[in-house]
Amino acid sequence: MKITVFVTPKKNVLDPQGVAVTHAMHTLGFESAKEVHVGKTIAFEVDGSDTPEFRASLDKLCTDLLSNPVIEDYRYELS
Amino acid sequence: MKITVFVTPKKNVLDPQGVAVTHAMHTLGFESAKEVHVGKTIAFEVDGSDTPEFRASLDKLCTDLLSNPVIEDYRYELS
Repeated sequence: MKITVFVTPKKNVLDPQGVAVTHAMHTLGFESAKEVHVGKTIAFEVDGSDTPEFRASLDKLCTDLLSNPVIEDYRYELS
Repeated sequence: MKITVFVTPKKNVLDPQGVAVTHAMHTLGFESAKEVHVGKTIAFEVDGSDTPEFRASLDKLCTDLLSNPVIEDYRYELS
């Protein structure tokens, strides 16, 4: 099973990387760029099937390892 | 217009972050995790419409600023 986890900074948290990219975009001609948010994706394959127990362990993995729940949100897609 | 750029390491390039996350997943009980790839997403809003010229400038932005085309691939979604 292929899993992709998307981690994004929470909306109300300062995102210095996003601010830096915004400035760079303005310099490079994208003057209208705004609301820039830089996140990360973690794609991986794992054995198993989509059960409630599996989702619970995946949520634990996301909060313990893949994201910082204080400042980041996550969502995932299974395929 | 909302744009999301997905940047991922090329398949044949060593991905040390992916290797580190793989080891951590194995330690945390996901023994079967494999093919872990860590990428990044850049989401932003920009004025304009979806024209060939706009796509060309977006491609240039992706190769010049948002990704390193030597070791990374990118794709984007417009909405």
